[in-house]
Amino acid sequence: MPSSFETLAAVDLGSNSFRLQIVRVDGEQFFPLDTLKDTVRLGAGLTADNFLDDATQERALTCLARFGDRLRHFRPDQVRVVGTNTLRVAKNSAAFIREAEARLGFPIEIIAGREEARLIYVGAAHSLPAGKEKRLVVDIGGGSTEFIIGSGMKAQKTESLGLGCVTYSLRYFPDGKLSKANFKNAEVAARNEIQRITHDYTPDQWQLAVGTSGTARSLRDILELNDYSVDGITRAGMERLKTELLRCGSMEAVNLNGLRADRAPVLPGGLAIMLAIFEELGIEQMTVTLGALRDGVLYDLLGRQYHKDLRDVTVTQFKRRYHVDTGQTERVAGLARQFYAQLAGSEAMQHPEIPRQLEWAAKLHEIGLMISHSSYHKHSAYIVEQADMPGFSRREQRQIAHLILAHKGSLSKMVALLNEQPAYWPAVLALRLAVLFSRSRRPVELPTPLQLSTAPRGFTLTVDGGWLASTPLTAGALKQEEAPWRATGLSFHVRQA
Amino acid sequence: MPSSFETLAAVDLGSNSFRLQIVRVDGEQFFPLDTLKDTVRLGAGLTADNFLDDATQERALTCLARFGDRLRHFRPDQVRVVGTNTLRVAKNSAAFIREAEARLGFPIEIIAGREEARLIYVGAAHSLPAGKEKRLVVDIGGGSTEFIIGSGMKAQKTESLGLGCVTYSLRYFPDGKLSKANFKNAEVAARNEIQRITHDYTPDQWQLAVGTSGTARSLRDILELNDYSVDGITRAGMERLKTELLRCGSMEAVNLNGLRADRAPVLPGGLAIMLAIFEELGIEQMTVTLGALRDGVLYDLLGRQYHKDLRDVTVTQFKRRYHVDTGQTERVAGLARQFYAQLAGSEAMQHPEIPRQLEWAAKLHEIGLMISHSSYHKHSAYIVEQADMPGFSRREQRQIAHLILAHKGSLSKMVALLNEQPAYWPAVLALRLAVLFSRSRRPVELPTPLQLSTAPRGFTLTVDGGWLASTPLTAGALKQEEAPWRATGLSFHVRQA
Repeated sequence: MPSSFETLAAVDLGSNSFRLQIVRVDGEQFFPLDTLKDTVRLGAGLTADNFLDDATQERALTCLARFGDRLRHFRPDQVRVVGTNTLRVAKNSAAFIREAEARLGFPIEIIAGREEARLIYVGAAHSLPAGKEKRLVVDIGGGSTEFIIGSGMKAQKTESLGLGCVTYSLRYFPDGKLSKANFKNAEVAARNEIQRITHDYTPDQWQLAVGTSGTARSLRDILELNDYSVDGITRAGMERLKTELLRCGSMEAVNLNGLRADRAPVLPGGLAIMLAIFEELGIEQMTVTLGALRDGVLYDLLGRQYHKDLRDVTVTQFKRRYHVDTGQTERVAGLARQFYAQLAGSEAMQHPEIPRQLEWAAKLHEIGLMISHSSYHKHSAYIVEQADMPGFSRREQRQIAHLILAHKGSLSKMVALLNEQPAYWPAVLALRLAVLFSRSRRPVELPTPLQLSTAPRGFTLTVDGGWLASTPLTAGALKQEEAPWRATGLSFHVRQA
Repeated sequence: MPSSFETLAAVDLGSNSFRLQIVRVDGEQFFPLDTLKDTVRLGAGLTADNFLDDATQERALTCLARFGDRLRHFRPDQVRVVGTNTLRVAKNSAAFIREAEARLGFPIEIIAGREEARLIYVGAAHSLPAGKEKRLVVDIGGGSTEFIIGSGMKAQKTESLGLGCVTYSLRYFPDGKLSKANFKNAEVAARNEIQRITHDYTPDQWQLAVGTSGTARSLRDILELNDYSVDGITRAGMERLKTELLRCGSMEAVNLNGLRADRAPVLPGGLAIMLAIFEELGIEQMTVTLGALRDGVLYDLLGRQYHKDLRDVTVTQFKRRYHVDTGQTERVAGLARQFYAQLAGSEAMQHPEIPRQLEWAAKLHEIGLMISHSSYHKHSAYIVEQADMPGFSRREQRQIAHLILAHKGSLSKMVALLNEQPAYWPAVLALRLAVLFSRSRRPVELPTPLQLSTAPRGFTLTVDGGWLASTPLTAGALKQEEAPWRATGLSFHVRQA
């Protein structure tokens, strides 16, 4: 549990801007200590075929080196870094992220659209007056827009669509040209996207509309300071703003109270998207709040430290949704924990995430049975890698999926995946042996002595010879387990004690 | 509905033998007219890395040419051809199957292990006295063994494991050598496989054990004719047989009443597997029946002709299991049917399977939402391709998965998949337009006139211009639909009437 004067940091690698926020924890509240922001406009660096161009990467890396400098003395568990839509879609993001992590000094998690939506709601909820009303929260980002219906601190519906103020401004308002046709095309395209979720967000399903993020704040400022609206964002106010923009004809000619220079290039795309949202979802008036993604990230980080980890809740939900045989998976998880402790020894201290991921992998390793018995380990891994799993980053999902994929059958497929992270091998062996000893799906009595140890370039299992002789089935299976390890360059040997 | 003197044919491409069975239909019963059998021993032609060798392919093709000759005047709906384990695992099976279909003149369906198990049960159930008892049916094939618990005509639990009399005889009894060590290794390996399902097949879960297929019939004959057992297969009888085999030391020296020459090479593997099954599942005595896979295939074929198609039942179950929004999928299915009829015209007569697959694709296209909203069409296609779907062949599942994959997003990924079967393109357009018009997830009123037609190398949608102008969203979406078709070499155009 963090001390009262602990500091935490969140970094949000958005498609419009990068932000670093450092806060002091007091009880379960935060007090901001420091904020850094850089309008990197990552989303504008995507080529037509979704590659991040070099100039933008360079701009982004320079910014991250600056953030890394500020974070130099932070421990890993004090910092969480999230990337959103542009990093989700860029085809060369893997190489960029490796470089980015080196500059920053901390791992970067790409989060799924729905996870982003959930975190945005958590951030927004903490900045709104407490209340029981149902809220519709809309976050127009640089590359994606999130829609959440929630109540109190809990998001109930989350969606993420691939439309953002950076991409729409570039695509529909080239050179900042403001014409009726440009607005119409942008609004129709946005409404077409939104229409897919309209039925789930109709006005009878919420009482208060809330905007977060730069686009909403900028629109609110402009509408209020130019007397286009009295309070927040309104449809009539936006129509008056659009009329004014059309009168100017080009963003260069626009001069409005409340419009910051760094927001001007992304204003028309953001306005078109907001108009489409009001039209499709039947919104008349929208309140704007300060809470945003990075606040949600910080509250989530705090929650984990207080042992209210949403990831455990998600794993429990998944076990129910996919009708998992809990007795069996608990047995496997227990054995895997025990084996991993023997194998990893002091090394485990350097990788606190691995035993947790091993536990989740053990609990989820059979969810693929719902699809098919044959190759169920591949189906389980597919679901874990692809699913919306609240609280998990994409990277964590992938690592858990790798453990699940490795728990059965050949290991040659795992060599390329795991040799970059060799610290996972002991976890793979622990899970495979846990499943092997649990094959009968009944409570397991382990022989004594049973000792797992790390040999140079491999592992040894030392087990009582008499016990082996008395259980030919398990003895045969343990013998068979030696073969798949040969493909990995590591050895596994069974030794009789 | 078939006439009373209709004939039907089933071909079973097993790992040990190929069989063609022709029957006359009388009511809902069959009377065998003709049976052809060839001990191709397909499973023995698999190389260590799972390629089917040339000599075996040649043997198989010669046999199929003979079968094809016998089937020359049959209509496609009178014949069903199924392939099992060896064709499931052979890496070069696609090329072989193309050639095999050419020789045979009918399409070959590779069926999943569980589907094979279900069909075996159907075949066995029809050959057993009616009764309400729970039966355990075991079918040791050449390359896989199926385990079914069922009652009456219905299979309740189905499993398929990759152990068979051909592969085990080759692997554990090279050159027909019969030693204690060989039997021990084979039995331990088999029990290790079986142990994975033991908990689901314990003796309290069934009252009668039934063996089907060649291995069981051969063991029964040998045990009864040599007085090793009085009735059927018993554990004590098999132990006496094993003692006799060990005394001989080699299959060449074995001379037993009831052992047919073509069964001798696969006897030791079959015996070891049956011993392992008795031991693991606690069986004391097993009855043997004639009914087998090919009978199940014939009853299934008859059922389809009587419009009791199991595939419809499976699709309904899947909609429930994956919590599908039935209102929406019924709307989409209805529109897709209507559009396809306009597009396919008389060509549809040549492809009666496509409108049925289109209907199933429409009903299942959203099941992937259970995994994740983003890329749900890929998840839906993954599930349909990988799942155990009673009544469907692997090929049907793949074709439905292709339709589902094509219903959204880019079509360039579909070109390689569908250009071998261009008759599917109208179904793809029908499904895409059905989803497009149903986007609001509310009942749809189509404009009149709305006319779909096939242009040379493409399709045209003619729609009322006034209606288009009044619904800018749908008009925009229809316009956008033109782009993805460019990648296919076919065009799609919207024309105002």
